[in-house]
Amino acid sequence: MGVTSNKVESLPNTTTPISVLTTQPLEIHKVSLPPNKTTFQSIKQSFSEFFFPDDPLHQFKDQSPFKKLILALQYLFPIFHWAPEYNLKLFKSDVISGLTIASLAIPQGISYAKLANLPPIIGLYSSFVPPLIYAVLGSSRDLAVGPVSIASLVMGYMLRDQVSPDQDPVLYLQLAFTATFFAGVFQASLGFLRLGFVVDFLSKPTLIGFMGGAAIIVSLQQLKGLLGIIHFTNKMGFVSVMESVFGETSEWAWQTILMGFSFLVLLLIARHISMRRPKLFWISAAAPLTSVILSTTISFIIKAPNHRIQTIGHLQKGLNPPSANLLCFHGNYLSLAIKTGIVTGILSLTEGIAVGRTFASLKNYQVDGNKEMMAIGIMNMAGSCSSCYVTTGSFSRSAVNYNAGSQTAVSNIVMASAVMFTMLFLMPLFYYTPNVILSAIIISAVIGLIDFQTAVKLWKVDKLDFLACMCAFFGVLFISVQMGLLIAVGISMFRILIQVTRPNTVILGNIPGTQSYRNMGQYGEARRVPYFLILSIESPIYFTNCMYLQERIMRWVREEEERIIRMKECELKCIVLDMAAVTALDTSGMEVLSEMKKALDKRSLQLVLANPVANVIERLHRSAKTWEVFGPDSIYMDVEEAVASVSSLLKYQP
Amino acid sequence: MGVTSNKVESLPNTTTPISVLTTQPLEIHKVSLPPNKTTFQSIKQSFSEFFFPDDPLHQFKDQSPFKKLILALQYLFPIFHWAPEYNLKLFKSDVISGLTIASLAIPQGISYAKLANLPPIIGLYSSFVPPLIYAVLGSSRDLAVGPVSIASLVMGYMLRDQVSPDQDPVLYLQLAFTATFFAGVFQASLGFLRLGFVVDFLSKPTLIGFMGGAAIIVSLQQLKGLLGIIHFTNKMGFVSVMESVFGETSEWAWQTILMGFSFLVLLLIARHISMRRPKLFWISAAAPLTSVILSTTISFIIKAPNHRIQTIGHLQKGLNPPSANLLCFHGNYLSLAIKTGIVTGILSLTEGIAVGRTFASLKNYQVDGNKEMMAIGIMNMAGSCSSCYVTTGSFSRSAVNYNAGSQTAVSNIVMASAVMFTMLFLMPLFYYTPNVILSAIIISAVIGLIDFQTAVKLWKVDKLDFLACMCAFFGVLFISVQMGLLIAVGISMFRILIQVTRPNTVILGNIPGTQSYRNMGQYGEARRVPYFLILSIESPIYFTNCMYLQERIMRWVREEEERIIRMKECELKCIVLDMAAVTALDTSGMEVLSEMKKALDKRSLQLVLANPVANVIERLHRSAKTWEVFGPDSIYMDVEEAVASVSSLLKYQP
Repeated sequence: MGVTSNKVESLPNTTTPISVLTTQPLEIHKVSLPPNKTTFQSIKQSFSEFFFPDDPLHQFKDQSPFKKLILALQYLFPIFHWAPEYNLKLFKSDVISGLTIASLAIPQGISYAKLANLPPIIGLYSSFVPPLIYAVLGSSRDLAVGPVSIASLVMGYMLRDQVSPDQDPVLYLQLAFTATFFAGVFQASLGFLRLGFVVDFLSKPTLIGFMGGAAIIVSLQQLKGLLGIIHFTNKMGFVSVMESVFGETSEWAWQTILMGFSFLVLLLIARHISMRRPKLFWISAAAPLTSVILSTTISFIIKAPNHRIQTIGHLQKGLNPPSANLLCFHGNYLSLAIKTGIVTGILSLTEGIAVGRTFASLKNYQVDGNKEMMAIGIMNMAGSCSSCYVTTGSFSRSAVNYNAGSQTAVSNIVMASAVMFTMLFLMPLFYYTPNVILSAIIISAVIGLIDFQTAVKLWKVDKLDFLACMCAFFGVLFISVQMGLLIAVGISMFRILIQVTRPNTVILGNIPGTQSYRNMGQYGEARRVPYFLILSIESPIYFTNCMYLQERIMRWVREEEERIIRMKECELKCIVLDMAAVTALDTSGMEVLSEMKKALDKRSLQLVLANPVANVIERLHRSAKTWEVFGPDSIYMDVEEAVASVSSLLKYQP
Repeated sequence: MGVTSNKVESLPNTTTPISVLTTQPLEIHKVSLPPNKTTFQSIKQSFSEFFFPDDPLHQFKDQSPFKKLILALQYLFPIFHWAPEYNLKLFKSDVISGLTIASLAIPQGISYAKLANLPPIIGLYSSFVPPLIYAVLGSSRDLAVGPVSIASLVMGYMLRDQVSPDQDPVLYLQLAFTATFFAGVFQASLGFLRLGFVVDFLSKPTLIGFMGGAAIIVSLQQLKGLLGIIHFTNKMGFVSVMESVFGETSEWAWQTILMGFSFLVLLLIARHISMRRPKLFWISAAAPLTSVILSTTISFIIKAPNHRIQTIGHLQKGLNPPSANLLCFHGNYLSLAIKTGIVTGILSLTEGIAVGRTFASLKNYQVDGNKEMMAIGIMNMAGSCSSCYVTTGSFSRSAVNYNAGSQTAVSNIVMASAVMFTMLFLMPLFYYTPNVILSAIIISAVIGLIDFQTAVKLWKVDKLDFLACMCAFFGVLFISVQMGLLIAVGISMFRILIQVTRPNTVILGNIPGTQSYRNMGQYGEARRVPYFLILSIESPIYFTNCMYLQERIMRWVREEEERIIRMKECELKCIVLDMAAVTALDTSGMEVLSEMKKALDKRSLQLVLANPVANVIERLHRSAKTWEVFGPDSIYMDVEEAVASVSSLLKYQP
């Protein structure tokens, strides 16, 4: 009992609330409270930290009204940023890169539309309007906009689950456009409400697992085209696809197989060369269009349909027809459209933002996530009214764009123009393009999504990240696309909660010759301080972990006492909790701290806190009950001062 | 660029990977890596920290086999702990407290059964078998076991939603027992699987809001009995109850109202007296039974049923009949029974554990949460086979038990005996007991659950806890019991995720005369160090916050540079990140750190880390790519050494 009461008696007149001993020779510093704030002020501050961490308006400070107008225009339409300084040299680079990505975008557009069970022409439409809108609104200079594989796959999968694209093609198309519209609304509102951090909840390991699984699912689906099978399962699961493939061997067409695999090998070799030598990026960039041209020529010469090789057939000429009248906001399928919109919206957003950030950091400029979301959202909303389905910045085409030397969003305009030209004049040429070549293009595109090396690295560095990755992978492969995604996000969340629920507590020891106290399990040279048990709590103290922490700290005390008896060392007198990492404390946590202090007091053990951060000391202070228990002389600025002050007091004890 | 390369050149042969400069006069300490562990070892350690934080087997260490057997028996059946030392004096205390709680348990048992829409006798059955089982298995000395209001309310509410207790009483009873069985299974398995921390997820603010809302709902329901209304709504919501009350004014019976409110006032006065003077606890403890006796006598004399006062009527004599044959594990309602079991199971568990812990800490002994869960679970499983519904330790009766001086679980045995005596011989006496008195008893019991003062304290200390509390309160009151609970748990979780998603970053300054660096917003005396920007990150770095942190740190750098230009101070050279509170780092976090380092390098700004904790340095080291970027000389043991070492290097720069 003596410790606390002695101390208080020897110091009857502590006038300032948090003052600490000054009668001792050593200098003890107060733990300061942060300046007082009103409730409104602190709410306002949390609010602005939450929604405006990047302080988007800072550039408007101290500017003339005219300059402010210009800045606002530039802020809303990034095109005003670079347009005034645009020149012929930049334009030349952009034309080259724009044409390069167009050669990719045309075959990929047709293929990805097939992945979403949509008519091939929708893929071209989607490579025309959205890139133009993005060029005006988007802030990334390297993003190549258009349909992407993952979002196409998921949209096709979710819609086909309830509506058959073969039996009810108009309804299916309506739903696709409506889902695209909702995807756009969702994306734009995330950006507008500055909730962009939502996409961060899909962690990279999760995405890698998810994309790997989806790539395998997509590739398996392509076996239909690659083997020339006509009756194929509607399901996505590994098992049902395999059944379909080996159940219908009679439908296998050797002509199709021969053509498909030859071109697949060609495409994969091209991809491999470009991977090994980034300078030869144009080989893999040109490969798909070359394959299409080659295979169409062959198909034309041998009259493919006579040899069991299916071709695309007649495609309508002309630009995007308006489709606003096809949007449907009522009826039984509205919830399906909304759900599909949200899932594809978030997936495509994640891809677009990640691509934008990657290339921005390579070229050392900043992409504003929230603005980017609004741009992508508006682009999709406009797209849904002009016969486009979900689009975003594509990983593969943006990489080609970057490698081809794109300088500004003009490369997207060039690409859109090339697509326009194709739609106006070249559509009849696709009549003989074999379907099998589209399957080969899809496989060669998605194969790059399987990132085996990163998975191995995850296993080495972080087992839990690896687990999340694997769960996403197998979830997508064997359960369903949505479930895989849900499981992976769940595991990532769970990981955060676990860390908060079962935080580390470590014993600190003094590093000889310094005033630092460090983890004894980490620093071999750290030494125990007699009479003291110094613990560091490596987590905020919340309702989810306060009972655990109480038990765990009591166990440390018990173990230390047992050790002391075994080693015949000096008796334990004081427990110091290093609170540096306790960055938050809720009411349950405060109660547990007080309870622990009282329980230890009864055992003549003193409990003192060292180095509480601003909001913890503030909260301790605000709760009269806790403050009474801890008082001013159980809280020190650092462990060193706590040890020095408590041990000088111990000397005065009987 | 010079900083890093200079440093490396001057130190070509750093043999140990994490060695730091030694050519300088100041002493720089290595940041140690914790000792190497195999994957298996680290998984084993995390596992045991997660499931066995209390090291439950420590008492078995170094004991003889016989002693081990005794300890094991004591561990499994806490009765062996105290039974050998039990004596007459303890027994006397236990008899007094046992009879006191029996006088509460009998009227409350009958009332709470009504709350769950069960026959009153089930309430008495439930106060007989479970206390006996708990006395053998339970480790709390003060818990008074029996039916409780919240679990009764929720069970009644959830079951009545699908099955009418009036039209289908047998099915309803079956479902109640089955739900009780599942509650028991759920509770016991939580304990057995050592997942007891699940109950911690219902934080105290959440519970206070929830219980306050439920108390009001319960009280409103009692208006049926209190006003003598016969046709009353089946719903729980505030609005529908009010409609029922004022829609049926013709059914109001003044005799019932007079009797009900008189006794309610009596009970509330008794409660108030006991609250003000804890020594007079027996007044409120005796009040319910006294009210029952008094009102029954009056009712008998005036022949109440003739005066529109409804009475309980005939009750069956005898002990609990077996009910295992009533459990039903198939059919349409199985999922309802399971759901009800889990919800009531977790609610009653939360109450039981909280009560046990509260009184254990008052008397300074430990209650093992996981063991307690198994005891409560087994008690409910056994209860479901002997005509009992969900039971747990009750807040109100345990407080009376404690105040009446209970010493061991024998008080539960005494209570059970008193209930047994009642069931065998006194049942006919309840024939004339008016229903209205049961409503009055329920109201006076639940009114104590409305904890207005704590809610006010929450508002003062912690706005987010207050918000969770209010959402639970209004959710229960206006939406539904389950939704209220869900919303509140959601908010509590969200709070944790928010703290991780938008962590604090603060600028540190040197406290003059010390080697400590502290938050400049908190410590007024802290001073900036020229050339340096020292930031502390107050959270683990995860995928959810790494993009935010990158943006925020870059903003700090930008603002600092602007400030320096404004104040004409010396140019910024180095950014030190204090990692003391960064207790975890995932792969996304590592990538962002490396990216930031590279981006700052390009701007000739050096980024160094100070004081990484064990698992962070380990992870940095394990990832070859990150380690290459940060290398050994960008990581220091503390901020002081980082500042000293970097500034001595700056001097050698051109």
